[in-house]
Amino acid sequence: MVSTDPDALKTYGSSPNSYHPESPHSVVVHATSTEDVVKIVNVARKYRIPVVAYSGATSLEGHFSGEVPGSICLDLSGMDKIIDINEADGDLTCQSGARWEDINQALKDQGIPLFFPLDPGPGATIGGMIGTGCSGTNAVRYGTARAEWFLNVTVVLPNGRVIKTRRRARKSSAGIDTTKLFIGAEGTLGIVTEATLRLAPVVPTKVAMAQFPDVGHAVSAVQEILNTPHGPHIQCVELLDDHMMAAINAAGLVSKAYPVRDTLFFKLQGTPAAMKEAAGAVQKIVKAHGSDRFEFAQTDQEAAELWENRKYALTSTITSGGEDAKVWTTDVCVPVSKLPQLVYETKKDLAEANLRSTIVGHVGDGNFHALIIFKTDEELQRVSDAVHRLVHRAIAMDGTCTGEHGVGVGKKEYLVEELGVETVELMRTVKRAVDPLNIMNPTKLYPDPKDEDDKNSH
Amino acid sequence: MVSTDPDALKTYGSSPNSYHPESPHSVVVHATSTEDVVKIVNVARKYRIPVVAYSGATSLEGHFSGEVPGSICLDLSGMDKIIDINEADGDLTCQSGARWEDINQALKDQGIPLFFPLDPGPGATIGGMIGTGCSGTNAVRYGTARAEWFLNVTVVLPNGRVIKTRRRARKSSAGIDTTKLFIGAEGTLGIVTEATLRLAPVVPTKVAMAQFPDVGHAVSAVQEILNTPHGPHIQCVELLDDHMMAAINAAGLVSKAYPVRDTLFFKLQGTPAAMKEAAGAVQKIVKAHGSDRFEFAQTDQEAAELWENRKYALTSTITSGGEDAKVWTTDVCVPVSKLPQLVYETKKDLAEANLRSTIVGHVGDGNFHALIIFKTDEELQRVSDAVHRLVHRAIAMDGTCTGEHGVGVGKKEYLVEELGVETVELMRTVKRAVDPLNIMNPTKLYPDPKDEDDKNSH
Ligand SMILES: Cc1cc2nc3c(=O)[nH]c(=O)nc-3n(C[C@H](O)[C@H](O)[C@H](O)COP(=O)(O)OP(=O)(O)OC[C@H]3O[C@@H](n4cnc5c(N)ncnc54)[C@H](O)[C@@H]3O)c2cc1C
Ligand SMILES: Cc1cc2nc3c(=O)[nH]c(=O)nc-3n(C[C@H](O)[C@H](O)[C@H](O)COP(=O)(O)OP(=O)(O)OC[C@H]3O[C@@H](n4cnc5c(N)ncnc54)[C@H](O)[C@@H]3O)c2cc1C
Repeated sequence: MVSTDPDALKTYGSSPNSYHPESPHSVVVHATSTEDVVKIVNVARKYRIPVVAYSGATSLEGHFSGEVPGSICLDLSGMDKIIDINEADGDLTCQSGARWEDINQALKDQGIPLFFPLDPGPGATIGGMIGTGCSGTNAVRYGTARAEWFLNVTVVLPNGRVIKTRRRARKSSAGIDTTKLFIGAEGTLGIVTEATLRLAPVVPTKVAMAQFPDVGHAVSAVQEILNTPHGPHIQCVELLDDHMMAAINAAGLVSKAYPVRDTLFFKLQGTPAAMKEAAGAVQKIVKAHGSDRFEFAQTDQEAAELWENRKYALTSTITSGGEDAKVWTTDVCVPVSKLPQLVYETKKDLAEANLRSTIVGHVGDGNFHALIIFKTDEELQRVSDAVHRLVHRAIAMDGTCTGEHGVGVGKKEYLVEELGVETVELMRTVKRAVDPLNIMNPTKLYPDPKDEDDKNSH
Repeated sequence: MVSTDPDALKTYGSSPNSYHPESPHSVVVHATSTEDVVKIVNVARKYRIPVVAYSGATSLEGHFSGEVPGSICLDLSGMDKIIDINEADGDLTCQSGARWEDINQALKDQGIPLFFPLDPGPGATIGGMIGTGCSGTNAVRYGTARAEWFLNVTVVLPNGRVIKTRRRARKSSAGIDTTKLFIGAEGTLGIVTEATLRLAPVVPTKVAMAQFPDVGHAVSAVQEILNTPHGPHIQCVELLDDHMMAAINAAGLVSKAYPVRDTLFFKLQGTPAAMKEAAGAVQKIVKAHGSDRFEFAQTDQEAAELWENRKYALTSTITSGGEDAKVWTTDVCVPVSKLPQLVYETKKDLAEANLRSTIVGHVGDGNFHALIIFKTDEELQRVSDAVHRLVHRAIAMDGTCTGEHGVGVGKKEYLVEELGVETVELMRTVKRAVDPLNIMNPTKLYPDPKDEDDKNSH
C-alpha cells in the first residue's frame, strides 16, 4: 500500500515527542513481507531514493523524519506476526513490526512462563528497538539490546540481498557478529524484517520505595546494593527527583501524596525466600545511606500503583506544566558514581536558565533523563541550549550523549567529542562499505562533516 | 624485543592443542605498550607484512599460526597490567594481555567482592578472549564475550590509528557498537591493547551432581530448570557423557569412582535461602526426569573436588588414551532441544569410525565438545573426517560450526554453509573496508573463495 496524502506524510515525518526540525517524506509505503521490502529497496537503489524505516515511531531524536527531499517512508508496523515460539529452547521468532508488549502478552496468554525483557517506550517494536539499541527499566538486571537478546535477524541489505545473520543456537563464535552491526544502526545499514529473540523466565517481583535526603545518598545506596550477592535480585531501580515526586502528587494520579524527596523505586525479583532475604538486605543498606522512609507494596494492586507512578513520569510532568505545556525528554548516561554530580549541576543550570524540569533515571546504569517543560518558541530555544550543556557535562564525566534513545538527528553533533574523530570515521567506513549509495536513512546518526570541523578547530 | 630464533618461531606459530597444518612466523615481536603496537602496525603497513596477534595462545583452531610467509607474530602477553579498578562502578581497566584468572585473583586479593565472569581456557587473556568471542562454563548465567562485559576497548586499527570505542558509562546508544566489531574478529580488524571490563558481584555457590539414564533425560531436565524462576540460580550446568565419567575414574584423579552414566554437574549460585530453595527445585526436577542419583557437595573441599572432575576433562581424556595419545577438541553448538540427537548420532558415528572419544558440554547453551583420541596420522585423518561430519550434523540442526572456540583456519570452510554467501560477503565487506591492505591475520576466519565455489556448485 502506498500513500502520498499530505497529512499522512507529515505525521510519518515527525514525532509528537521530539522537537528537532523535522520534514515530511514524499511517500509512505506499507510493507507486509520481506519480499515487499526487497522490492522497495530495489526501487530505491535504482533511483537513488532514500528509504527510512518506520515502525513503532516512539523514538525521540528525529530518527525517522524526512530530511532528504523525495524520501520513502517504509512503514513496517504491519509486519507484526509472531512466527514461532520454542518454549523449551526459550526463543521466539517474529516479524520486526511486533511490539514488545504484544509479544509478552501473547506468551502470557499461552501460559508460557517466559518473557522478553527489553522494555523501552510503550508501542515500540522489535525493529525499532534493534534500530535504536534500546533498553529500559529492566536493563540493570537484563542488559540492553546490545547484549544477547537477538539471536538472529533477517535483514534486507542496501544491495537488495536478504541475509540471516545467524542460526538458532544460543551462542556462536563463527566470526564477527553481524547481528550486532544492525543494533543501534538506526536503519542506516539495512532493514530488519524478522528476528529470533531469546526469552527469560518470568520471576516473581515485589515493588518498594525508599526516600533519601539527596541524590548522592540514593546513588551510593544503589551502588552498594548492586555489588552484594543480592544485586542480581534488583530487576529495576529508578530514581525520581523531588520535582518528579511533586509532579506525580500534583497530577493526582495516585491515591495518596508522597513526601517530596529524592526517591528510589525498586522492583526486586526472586523466589519467595530469596526475595525476603534481598528485601531485608536492601532495607538495611538504604537505611545506612540515610533513607528514613522505606515501603514495600503489600498487595499486587499496591505494587502496580506504586510502579505506575514511575510509568506516569512523562504524563505527570506534562500535566504539571499547565495548559499547552510540552516536554523535551533528553537522555545521557555516566558512570554511576558521577550521577549525583551530574544531577546536582544540571538542576542548578536549569534553575539558572529559569526552566522547570523533572528528573528520572535508570540509576543502576547511570542513565539519566531530564524532562524539561516549555511552552513558547523562546523557551524551546532555552531548553535546546540547556540540553546542549547537559550533554557536554555528561561527556566530560566520561559519559555518553545518549544512554538508550539513540542519535537520530538530535545527538549526531556530539559523537566526535564523545568518541573521537577516528572512532566516528570507523563507523562511517562501515556505513560507506555496506551502503555505498547512501540510500538507507541518510543524514541520521553519522555526524555531518561540519560538526567535525567545528570540533577540530577548537 | 624481537626474536627470530627458529625454535621460538615454531612455538609461536603452532599450538599443542590444535592439529591443523600450521606454519612458523618469520619474526616474533614483544610489545609492551600501545605505542609499540602502533610502530609495528606502521612497519607492517609500509611493507605490507601480515601481523598476527598472539596472547594467551590457548585458542584451538590454528588462530595464530604463520600461514603467510614473512608474517610478524605480535606477542602481547607481556601487556598484562591492571590499570584501574573502580569498585563502586563495578568496572576495571587493564591491558589486553591480562589473564582472566589473574584479574579475578587480584580482585580477591584486594578484598573486592566482584569478578569477571568469562572463563575460557586456563591462561587465556582479555585480548584473545575478545578475539575469539569466548565464553565458558559461566555463560549459561552471564552470557558470552558478545554480551556487555567489554565496555570500551582501545584498538590499533590497520591504518595505524588508535581508537577507544566508547567511554566508561555502562550503556550507550551512540551509534553502531564499534566495540562489538572486534569481538570474534580474531585479530583481523585491529589489535586490542586495553579494555574496560564490567564486573559482577561474587555470589556464593554450591556444586551438585546428577546422573541420568541418557542424555535426552539430562537435557530435558536442564531445559525445565532453566525456564523456572530458579533458572537464574544456575551459574553453570555441564554435561559429561558416560565415556567422560569412565575416563575420570580411570585417570585416578578422584578419591572415589563414580557410576559410569551420563552426568550433569551443576554450580548453583545465590544467597543461602535462595540456594536452598533452588537446590530443592533442581532435585525435584532431575528426579522427575529419571535421575536416580543426585548429590550435593557437603563441604567446600568436596565442592572443589567435584568441580575439578569437570575441569580435568581434557587431562583425563588424554590419560585414558594411553601412552602418546593426543586429543582433538572440537566445538559445535545447537538449539538445546537438538542436543540429545546430536550426541546420539555423533556417538554412533564415532563408534562406526572406530574412534574413542569423550563428550563434555556447556549443556545450558547447547554447546558441545567432543574430545577425540588419536595416535597415528591415519587416525588423525579419521578424526578430521569425523569432525567434518559432526559440524555438518550440527549445522543441519540449525546450529553453528563453533559455539565458543572460533573459526581460525579450522572452521572457515563451514561459514558459507552455516550463514549463507551473502552474510559471509557482509563480513568480508567489513574486513576489506577496515583492513584494505589485508595485513591483519590474513587467511584466518574469512572463507577462502574456493570454499564458496564448492558450496555454490552443490
Ligand atoms: C514514553 C516513552 C518512553 C520511552 N522509554 C524508553 C526507555 O525506557 N528506553 C529506551 O531505550 N527508549 C525509550 N523510549 C524511546 C523509544 O521507545 C525507543 O527508542 C524504541 O526502541 C523505538 O522503537 P520504535 O519501534 O518506536 O522505533 P521507530 O521510532 O519506528 O524507529 C527507530 C529507529 O529505528 C529504525 N528502524 C525502525 N524499524 C526498523 C527496522 N525494521 N529495521 C531497521 N531499522 C529500523 C528507524 O529508521 C529509526 O531510525 C521511550 C519513548 C517514549 C515515547
Ligand atoms: C584446556 C582448554 C579449555 C578451553 N575452554 C574454553 C571454554 O570453555 N570456552 C572458550 O570459549 N574457549 C575455551 N578454550 C579456548 C581458548 O581458551 C579461548 O579461545 C580463548 O579466548 C583464547 O584466548 P588467548 O588469550 O589464549 O588467545 P590467543 O590464542 O592468543 O589468540 C586467539 C585469537 O585472538 C587474536 N588475538 C589475541 N590477542 C589479541 C589482541 N590483543 N587483539 C586482537 N586480537 C587478538 C589472535 O590473533 C587469535 O586469532 C579452551 C582452551 C583450552 C586449551
